[in-house]
Amino acid sequence: MKPEEIVKVLTSVKTGRLTVEKALERLKHLPYENLEFARIDHHRHLRQGMPEVIYCEGKRVEQVVKIAERILDQKGDIIATRADQDVFDALKIVDDKAVYNELGRVITILHKKKGTTKGSVLIVSGGTSDVPVAEEAHAMLDALGSRVNTLYDVGVAGIHRLLDNREVLLKARVIIVVAGMDGALASVVGGLAAQPVIAVPTSSGYGASFGGIAALLTMLNSCAAGVAVMNIDNGFGAACLAHKINLVGERLLKAQ
Amino acid sequence: MKPEEIVKVLTSVKTGRLTVEKALERLKHLPYENLEFARIDHHRHLRQGMPEVIYCEGKRVEQVVKIAERILDQKGDIIATRADQDVFDALKIVDDKAVYNELGRVITILHKKKGTTKGSVLIVSGGTSDVPVAEEAHAMLDALGSRVNTLYDVGVAGIHRLLDNREVLLKARVIIVVAGMDGALASVVGGLAAQPVIAVPTSSGYGASFGGIAALLTMLNSCAAGVAVMNIDNGFGAACLAHKINLVGERLLKAQ
Amino acid sequence: MKPEEIVKVLTSVKTGRLTVEKALERLKHLPYENLEFARIDHHRHLRQGMPEVIYCEGKRVEQVVKIAERILDQKGDIIATRADQDVFDALKIVDDKAVYNELGRVITILHKKKGTTKGSVLIVSGGTSDVPVAEEAHAMLDALGSRVNTLYDVGVAGIHRLLDNREVLLKARVIIVVAGMDGALASVVGGLAAQPVIAVPTSSGYGASFGGIAALLTMLNSCAAGVAVMNIDNGFGAACLAHKINLVGERLLKAQ
Amino acid sequence: MKPEEIVKVLTSVKTGRLTVEKALERLKHLPYENLEFARIDHHRHLRQGMPEVIYCEGKRVEQVVKIAERILDQKGDIIATRADQDVFDALKIVDDKAVYNELGRVITILHKKKGTTKGSVLIVSGGTSDVPVAEEAHAMLDALGSRVNTLYDVGVAGIHRLLDNREVLLKARVIIVVAGMDGALASVVGGLAAQPVIAVPTSSGYGASFGGIAALLTMLNSCAAGVAVMNIDNGFGAACLAHKINLVGERLLKAQ
Amino acid sequence: MKPEEIVKVLTSVKTGRLTVEKALERLKHLPYENLEFARIDHHRHLRQGMPEVIYCEGKRVEQVVKIAERILDQKGDIIATRADQDVFDALKIVDDKAVYNELGRVITILHKKKGTTKGSVLIVSGGTSDVPVAEEAHAMLDALGSRVNTLYDVGVAGIHRLLDNREVLLKARVIIVVAGMDGALASVVGGLAAQPVIAVPTSSGYGASFGGIAALLTMLNSCAAGVAVMNIDNGFGAACLAHKINLVGERLLKAQ
Amino acid sequence: MKPEEIVKVLTSVKTGRLTVEKALERLKHLPYENLEFARIDHHRHLRQGMPEVIYCEGKRVEQVVKIAERILDQKGDIIATRADQDVFDALKIVDDKAVYNELGRVITILHKKKGTTKGSVLIVSGGTSDVPVAEEAHAMLDALGSRVNTLYDVGVAGIHRLLDNREVLLKARVIIVVAGMDGALASVVGGLAAQPVIAVPTSSGYGASFGGIAALLTMLNSCAAGVAVMNIDNGFGAACLAHKINLVGERLLKAQ
Amino acid sequence: MKPEEIVKVLTSVKTGRLTVEKALERLKHLPYENLEFARIDHHRHLRQGMPEVIYCEGKRVEQVVKIAERILDQKGDIIATRADQDVFDALKIVDDKAVYNELGRVITILHKKKGTTKGSVLIVSGGTSDVPVAEEAHAMLDALGSRVNTLYDVGVAGIHRLLDNREVLLKARVIIVVAGMDGALASVVGGLAAQPVIAVPTSSGYGASFGGIAALLTMLNSCAAGVAVMNIDNGFGAACLAHKINLVGERLLKAQ
Amino acid sequence: MKPEEIVKVLTSVKTGRLTVEKALERLKHLPYENLEFARIDHHRHLRQGMPEVIYCEGKRVEQVVKIAERILDQKGDIIATRADQDVFDALKIVDDKAVYNELGRVITILHKKKGTTKGSVLIVSGGTSDVPVAEEAHAMLDALGSRVNTLYDVGVAGIHRLLDNREVLLKARVIIVVAGMDGALASVVGGLAAQPVIAVPTSSGYGASFGGIAALLTMLNSCAAGVAVMNIDNGFGAACLAHKINLVGERLLKAQ
Repeated sequence: MKPEEIVKVLTSVKTGRLTVEKALERLKHLPYENLEFARIDHHRHLRQGMPEVIYCEGKRVEQVVKIAERILDQKGDIIATRADQDVFDALKIVDDKAVYNELGRVITILHKKKGTTKGSVLIVSGGTSDVPVAEEAHAMLDALGSRVNTLYDVGVAGIHRLLDNREVLLKARVIIVVAGMDGALASVVGGLAAQPVIAVPTSSGYGASFGGIAALLTMLNSCAAGVAVMNIDNGFGAACLAHKINLVGERLLKAQ
Repeated sequence: MKPEEIVKVLTSVKTGRLTVEKALERLKHLPYENLEFARIDHHRHLRQGMPEVIYCEGKRVEQVVKIAERILDQKGDIIATRADQDVFDALKIVDDKAVYNELGRVITILHKKKGTTKGSVLIVSGGTSDVPVAEEAHAMLDALGSRVNTLYDVGVAGIHRLLDNREVLLKARVIIVVAGMDGALASVVGGLAAQPVIAVPTSSGYGASFGGIAALLTMLNSCAAGVAVMNIDNGFGAACLAHKINLVGERLLKAQ
Repeated sequence: MKPEEIVKVLTSVKTGRLTVEKALERLKHLPYENLEFARIDHHRHLRQGMPEVIYCEGKRVEQVVKIAERILDQKGDIIATRADQDVFDALKIVDDKAVYNELGRVITILHKKKGTTKGSVLIVSGGTSDVPVAEEAHAMLDALGSRVNTLYDVGVAGIHRLLDNREVLLKARVIIVVAGMDGALASVVGGLAAQPVIAVPTSSGYGASFGGIAALLTMLNSCAAGVAVMNIDNGFGAACLAHKINLVGERLLKAQ
Repeated sequence: MKPEEIVKVLTSVKTGRLTVEKALERLKHLPYENLEFARIDHHRHLRQGMPEVIYCEGKRVEQVVKIAERILDQKGDIIATRADQDVFDALKIVDDKAVYNELGRVITILHKKKGTTKGSVLIVSGGTSDVPVAEEAHAMLDALGSRVNTLYDVGVAGIHRLLDNREVLLKARVIIVVAGMDGALASVVGGLAAQPVIAVPTSSGYGASFGGIAALLTMLNSCAAGVAVMNIDNGFGAACLAHKINLVGERLLKAQ
Repeated sequence: MKPEEIVKVLTSVKTGRLTVEKALERLKHLPYENLEFARIDHHRHLRQGMPEVIYCEGKRVEQVVKIAERILDQKGDIIATRADQDVFDALKIVDDKAVYNELGRVITILHKKKGTTKGSVLIVSGGTSDVPVAEEAHAMLDALGSRVNTLYDVGVAGIHRLLDNREVLLKARVIIVVAGMDGALASVVGGLAAQPVIAVPTSSGYGASFGGIAALLTMLNSCAAGVAVMNIDNGFGAACLAHKINLVGERLLKAQ
Repeated sequence: MKPEEIVKVLTSVKTGRLTVEKALERLKHLPYENLEFARIDHHRHLRQGMPEVIYCEGKRVEQVVKIAERILDQKGDIIATRADQDVFDALKIVDDKAVYNELGRVITILHKKKGTTKGSVLIVSGGTSDVPVAEEAHAMLDALGSRVNTLYDVGVAGIHRLLDNREVLLKARVIIVVAGMDGALASVVGGLAAQPVIAVPTSSGYGASFGGIAALLTMLNSCAAGVAVMNIDNGFGAACLAHKINLVGERLLKAQ
Repeated sequence: MKPEEIVKVLTSVKTGRLTVEKALERLKHLPYENLEFARIDHHRHLRQGMPEVIYCEGKRVEQVVKIAERILDQKGDIIATRADQDVFDALKIVDDKAVYNELGRVITILHKKKGTTKGSVLIVSGGTSDVPVAEEAHAMLDALGSRVNTLYDVGVAGIHRLLDNREVLLKARVIIVVAGMDGALASVVGGLAAQPVIAVPTSSGYGASFGGIAALLTMLNSCAAGVAVMNIDNGFGAACLAHKINLVGERLLKAQ
Repeated sequence: MKPEEIVKVLTSVKTGRLTVEKALERLKHLPYENLEFARIDHHRHLRQGMPEVIYCEGKRVEQVVKIAERILDQKGDIIATRADQDVFDALKIVDDKAVYNELGRVITILHKKKGTTKGSVLIVSGGTSDVPVAEEAHAMLDALGSRVNTLYDVGVAGIHRLLDNREVLLKARVIIVVAGMDGALASVVGGLAAQPVIAVPTSSGYGASFGGIAALLTMLNSCAAGVAVMNIDNGFGAACLAHKINLVGERLLKAQ
């Protein structure tokens, strides 16, 4: 409930159009509505263009479809993460604007154009097995509206490929580094770049990679100052944070 | 070495002003010179106002003093982290502008005013035992030049204190959350705030807190989207990242 | 062997109806019989209305059926936990009063009404993936006879939903908090509620949630005083303890 | 802000005594005021007779003294946990009613009599090295007002001592089990007793006890249904929970 | 190469039937043959009646059959552990004396009677899910020739069942305790029994049992002196050790 | 309460010297007395010559002295483990027969000769840093009465030293292997010896030895069948078990 | 781009055969080309005969085929690791020279003879379940061109088999030890051999082998000086390192 | 016992100078004597110039002195690792040729010149806190006789320093990389260099570096093929292995 709505209720009471009892009834949900985080939350979402997100892991296809339909009824955008092909097939029937990022396992049904920010997010990834996580971030950033560039397969073992792309590094506003195995890529990028760096360890690797723990620890201990770390395989969260940082700039641009 | 410089070399060869041998010699260091990260690195530091940082843990007082004197000779700023009282006593003799943040164990000798950015960083912390880490971040941000606000002792067990300060949360450009024990504060702040949130687990607690692992895992698994995590007790790194994010905005302001 | 039985033996010896040798023989099993925990155990179960529980994990359908039939022959109640659909199909044939809580995977065949206690247990849970564990607790409490209320999907990231239901929190005699990922919900509820809080970490989540370890550690380190923790996914145990605490009140009510 | 207060505001608007703007202003802080947890929190503390608790670990003697003096000014009770002899010496000067439980490292300055509840809490502990944690719980329960009985040094290796005290077990309303090393005592007590059992692992032991992890895991996996677990060495938290459970009964007794 | 064979070689050299060169050649493998552990090994096996053991995990049926046939050709006994039904079906064709302990997943083809030792090994186990490991030990002991008694389903939560069988405990020469979850049974048995106790943690349980780690740690930290621990689920190894201890007594009996 | 005592009670009842009430009273403690484990326990100790053991870690010198004096009053033997020099100095005053195994940190005051068993226990250890644990076992075995041989400093890196002593291995009735770092010695000895082998990992080593975890895991995974493992640094427990196994042979010898 | 090629470009510019623009174009990739690691990399590969390696885990058959075809177009050798039968079937169609090491899951299509080095690498392995990892190393070494000898199934439990093959140990230039479970084999070989020893822990084993962690820790803590360790199951990496060490000798031989 | 000695025994038997019985007696110790590893061991040491090494951790000064004197009596070289100043002071008195590498805590008393090999070992290290481990390796290599170069303080965060020294990398025969915190340096060096790379994780760092585990895991998971890993802080072992690899080349040079 926005301030103007409260004013409307109060005015109706004043003019007698609304009895005190009915006003009380309407304000009954005020503590919650008035708590304002819900509202702020809403505003923030609108402001950030952040649509509802459906985490598909462990949900049945029908459940996902039902949630999606409810959101679409409210003219909302759809982002479904960790979504398999059969979820896509079902959503495609619901709305044929549905787009599937197969590698990143993200389905989107958006009512606006993607990538409209002036500043951009760069996603850097190590080996080919890190691409699914990088693509989850990619699809999320598309859906959130941030412009994205990618620099894949630039692992530390062939470090010249990364060095050769220094200019790409320099042009980004924020950098997401996605790497499994030794996770060393985050430190190297963090050492080269002046921008905020968000590191995402992946569960790729075997043996003592322990499903991503090795890369996670590497990144937490990065000797490059100012590298922050997400949960293992959490391309989604990295995108959310990168978008928020990107917006720090966008808002100022809009404010001009 | 920029393209135009290569053109200059090539033209000199063409016109005979430069022998092939000498041209080869000049191009010999090209890979490194052309890499430019050393230089870029320098530029970045200057641009960000990020002074040299001396990590005192495991260094002897004389060593710290020697490094500090060398930096001061070059008119550089001093930031010494994890610094004990005796290091401060020694640096105070070297330069009586030395300032000691005793809780955060940071010593600074700065030639510029602190907190000159327009945007500000908010540091939120849980219990009193988390304050040293929060203060390390505070002192670092002061030294880097970011404006800082703090909201200490707002642990989850008394959540109304945090809710009562929602407006403080909303005014920051970036938020650092410092918390030990259960580390739950990061999720609660992450759920309330639209800004980028950087979470720092601390080693405070006992038993199954395992020196900060419990808080670290809580934060990595935060259900609030877009919370990134630093190493345990790494107030320094959180400040560096928060400053970089803050600068995303500052640069745009300056560009106007 | 109750005291009166010992008296009977002694009297028989006194009157000569029993030789010393035969009396010794009868007292031979005294340690065990007199220990009475087997019997006490039985009494306790009866007193608490706690029926036999069949843990189905790793048992074949026929085994579960056989155990159930034996209990039913003795007019006992059936509670089968971690039970799949095929177990339910088989038990339904044995006794068509069988009820299946599909989400919580609990089957019950009860001869009494559920939820007859005056005091109630509140089950609070975070995300939808925590519901199966919450429902295991729910079904168990039903079977044990405690009244139950539930407050699902009130995760920390949308904390206003929880705050909006403060009154529900206050009306319970005991609270069970079921949460995975960061497990922060237990600390927040523990900070709001005066009642005993039992926290159940769940294995939902991915990456550094390590199958529930993250939530487990969060809960063990809760800064809210007086939160106790169960094994990961142990909705069953939480229900048993909550019921025991609930009975502390019931017994006194009955004693009036 | 209670409903009647909202009605008052609305009525004032209706009658013109309050402008819409001023009414909006007064409703602005509604969410927080109406939340009332701060107040509720206070009430709960008063109702439970739970005095402020000072956690001394990492605080300097002067700090503890200052906090204590402020509480005493407000006629509050003092409980200081993890307190060393020098803290006691200082508090003894402040108020010579100060009492020191040396083993449990708890100092109390109380204005009421201890142990006034009708129901009692039983503390069972394994070896002599577990006594400090048991005594922390003991001192806390004294301060909170619960009656306490203890059964120390009844480890599993000499199980007859425990069995011999079955009647003591049966008379308690709640049982706290404190044990290190293999932590098996919790399972054995949990198997014998019908009451709620709170298990506290201790860090006593060596080698593969890993500072209490072995006992912690044993207790989390207890085959006795309804055993809940606290953090390692957390006698304080166990006492808080045991007291809350004890109060479930007390309140009903008082309500008669 | 047995001493008599060396004597034969030496004698042949002496009598000239063997040249020094040829003798050297034949003695070339002496280090190994003379090392005698191979032979000792053999002797030990024969002496202990310990047949070759085939660990089937990860072997194909044909491989197991081939190995078994080779052993049978040499009139050897067959013990195949971790064997599935299809391995049994195949071995049954090879030799219809093949016997399958389905629970313990052990197949044996023996040419002697089982259980011929005077002393006996007692296997005690906790829940029904520990039985497979207990039965692996059982089948192994049968095959090795030790007499076996079992006491299953005597978990700590119903401790009277164990106490009621004290005499069974006392009659064994060695005791194997098999338990998962909290593993507390080993401590209780170790406290009651004077005999050597071998504890086998099992991987049964869920959540914080971590596939048997909880039980393993409990047992390693047993407060009962003189309890030794095997690898998780290693019923095979426990049987080998128990048999060796049992033989300490048997050999002396034979020596009379 | 021994059977004859029960007979005495029953006879007194029969003859009228004891009323039924008084007999009941005397039999009241029967469950416990009759449980006999306390007594059995005692008997076992006497039978095994196992004196009371005082674990000194965390006890003050006065406490140890007080316990020792009480045992000596009852003509008992003293074994104090993990005892420092000052404990020895104090016990030497109490009884100058006190003997200190300085390396193993064990003090004994014995009234009988050590090493009287016919069979012997062999203690094999790896490096010099493992000797304290080996000597704890040695001193314990001396005190318990088992004959002991030692084979120290025969680490796997110089395996010929071990092989050269095969005959020493063969003569023992039980073997204790004490090793830190890689703990590989247990597997090698287990492969060479037919006897029961008890492995004790030690906390010697650094880095990834993790205070003995590496050696512990090595030993639990030993490919030599029939090796059982004690807690890290638990020379005491290994001695207890080795003595129990040794007694399996001794009892039979006595029985002849 | 080699120095002579730069000279050629420069000379062409000088002589006017190349315009400055075209020269710039050709030097455009200089930073990268001149960085020389790419080239060095190439040279090194050629020099070492190290063909491109395709890691098949997580790649689809078509992907592997496509990569292979591209390499074959450039006359390159193919090594595909972690390759299943269906990958082999597909590659066999592409080039019928394809050879499959089924146990080691390595497919090779080579244009040169294998095993041409003078020095050889010895692969020693413990149990049969370690053979796949050993064979991965074997197939890699074949493909790289190092001569290989193998000594399989020489586990520590039957140490005489290893001792009997001392001469085989002595003849190798480098030794790879592959072992799971207790991993003790690396220490024993390291103690016997003067050569560089590379230890590869395998994930074979169960329970407390924790998927190879036990063997990994054993090897890291080896008391034999100079044993280095690879990731769990990393036969591929061990082969690469062994080949590099082998080449240290080969190069010198060639240099003569 | 060398072959010629066996021939001598056989000849003596043939000629009758030795009876068969006496020959058998002399061959009795053959397994060990003939095993020759003791001797081989000696030869290897001599051949490699590897002097006895005294690990000082946990040894008293007198013990170290005594061992050193015994070695010096036999004209042996002394290497004492993990040695403190007081050990050096004591050894300096024994032999004033004693040299102390204070950072690496290694004392040497050598009778030959250091660094005589033609090939050299390069030690690369990250931060200043890694230098002690690097210097332990340095001092060891000096003592063993390998030529050494060092490249310190070339952490990944300033990667250009490393790239600028590519030629130093290329000139070494073996490379040791010493790094703590994120341990990423090993991957970067491994990607640049064609030589064998030995990685040593150090315990420097804090929080989630877990005493070197983070760096250890990073290195085990290095994406650069052919990097082998030593135990945490094991500069000693890295030096031994590097020296062995260096000798692969030296021996061939000598063989010319």
